[in-house]
Amino acid sequence: VTPPPLDRCLPRGARGRVYLVGAGPGDPELLTLRAHRLLVSAKVVAYDELVGKEILALVPENAERIAVGRRKGTNPSAPSIHPSVLERALAGIDVVRLKGGDPFVFGRGGEEAEQLAALRIPFEVVAGVSAALGAAAATGIPLTHRDAASSVTFATAQARHDASADDLAARVPAEGTLVLYMGLGNLAETAARLISLGRPPSTPVAIVSHATLPTERTLIGDLSSIGEAAAIANLATPALVIVGEVVAHRVVPAAEPAQPSTSPPAISARRTA
Amino acid sequence: VTPPPLDRCLPRGARGRVYLVGAGPGDPELLTLRAHRLLVSAKVVAYDELVGKEILALVPENAERIAVGRRKGTNPSAPSIHPSVLERALAGIDVVRLKGGDPFVFGRGGEEAEQLAALRIPFEVVAGVSAALGAAAATGIPLTHRDAASSVTFATAQARHDASADDLAARVPAEGTLVLYMGLGNLAETAARLISLGRPPSTPVAIVSHATLPTERTLIGDLSSIGEAAAIANLATPALVIVGEVVAHRVVPAAEPAQPSTSPPAISARRTA
Repeated sequence: VTPPPLDRCLPRGARGRVYLVGAGPGDPELLTLRAHRLLVSAKVVAYDELVGKEILALVPENAERIAVGRRKGTNPSAPSIHPSVLERALAGIDVVRLKGGDPFVFGRGGEEAEQLAALRIPFEVVAGVSAALGAAAATGIPLTHRDAASSVTFATAQARHDASADDLAARVPAEGTLVLYMGLGNLAETAARLISLGRPPSTPVAIVSHATLPTERTLIGDLSSIGEAAAIANLATPALVIVGEVVAHRVVPAAEPAQPSTSPPAISARRTA
Repeated sequence: VTPPPLDRCLPRGARGRVYLVGAGPGDPELLTLRAHRLLVSAKVVAYDELVGKEILALVPENAERIAVGRRKGTNPSAPSIHPSVLERALAGIDVVRLKGGDPFVFGRGGEEAEQLAALRIPFEVVAGVSAALGAAAATGIPLTHRDAASSVTFATAQARHDASADDLAARVPAEGTLVLYMGLGNLAETAARLISLGRPPSTPVAIVSHATLPTERTLIGDLSSIGEAAAIANLATPALVIVGEVVAHRVVPAAEPAQPSTSPPAISARRTA
């Protein structure tokens, strides 16, 4: 028996609107005006674990908060969007779906938007400051530089989870800056692979943990040593890994004891080989 | 005769602080809270041509505005930072240096930060929504997607201007999404080069002109046809070019006549070959 078309199974009446909102890298000051506006007037906010307390504190007290954790072991072909989000929207209630960084950079925003469109639920995508941009600005490492890089690639260290082959080679260009999202887990392996792909072992690398948050920490090394250094430093996730000559162009502002800064100084550890 | 150290030639006394601020892709609603806060209380704002009127309208009326145009024919090794910005800072006046998108992605923020540090002028880098992220969210094209791309590369179509060789090959990975900044000028050439590098001629391409602004326009095609289509469409710059299977995953929200949206619908033109 063919199931009836989806449309006929859905409740009639007005749909709520789903806002797929980038929460930025962590510092609430790096929210966009649009994201801030939506948050402070939200009735329902669904957020994933990458969104911090400082940002959730902006949500009105009487709003419903739904923690939408990454569900390990979930079938990759299962719907990306959380059932409770769909439920609210189909009942006519607007939902702010808050995602770390930008919803369209490793945020599954594309997959969720496709499902919303299929269900004829109106939605809007609000761009955010992706984690790499926040980490770069906070640590003084430019992502492109006249003398160092005319491109920057954002990639995950792991291949997408439905691919069987290791396709890191296909995702990383020969030159230019590389930012690995969620790259801390198997960093020694990834660094070795990048060297085997032709990046010099002396290529500078920065790990930025908790970028733009008060708990931010930065570890500087090179491809040959960073895996071991990271294991010793035991940095907290989420962390980003920036690979390339731009790391050597890191600029730290001169000390300014009189001027309080909103972001704390990065703790920098340079390993000598 | 050796010139005296730079420090001794500089005026003593307190320096002003320079804020290297990302203005985002265009829509003022995509400014960060931090950028907005700095703008509305600025005494001096130096901005480049990519920053639009809507954003400059936020600057207080009595503030000094300095247009810092891209100076064609400038010696590439000349200082990146504008002399008038340095002058104000050395005189003890804070300056907001406003840049389109994010200051560390093709914004020369790294070069300017290096100069500020050398002159012991305090500075702060404020991350912004890079143009690619704004264009993606506004047009419904995810930059990464489970079924289409696990990486995204931002590159300029031209090699950096001090490089003599065409190094596009070195900057573009075999797979994944590619976003070309300032890619409209020589698009036919670039598209042909990407095909010669192994990207299928049928690879979908989107050009997004004036992303996130009321004048936004989108043109969809593929690598084999986009150069000709762009020439006919005569899109306004600045424009971004998004290349990759993610373009086929573009999701446009269902029509919602009752709900006014802050961003206008994209005008889409699909060329049939």
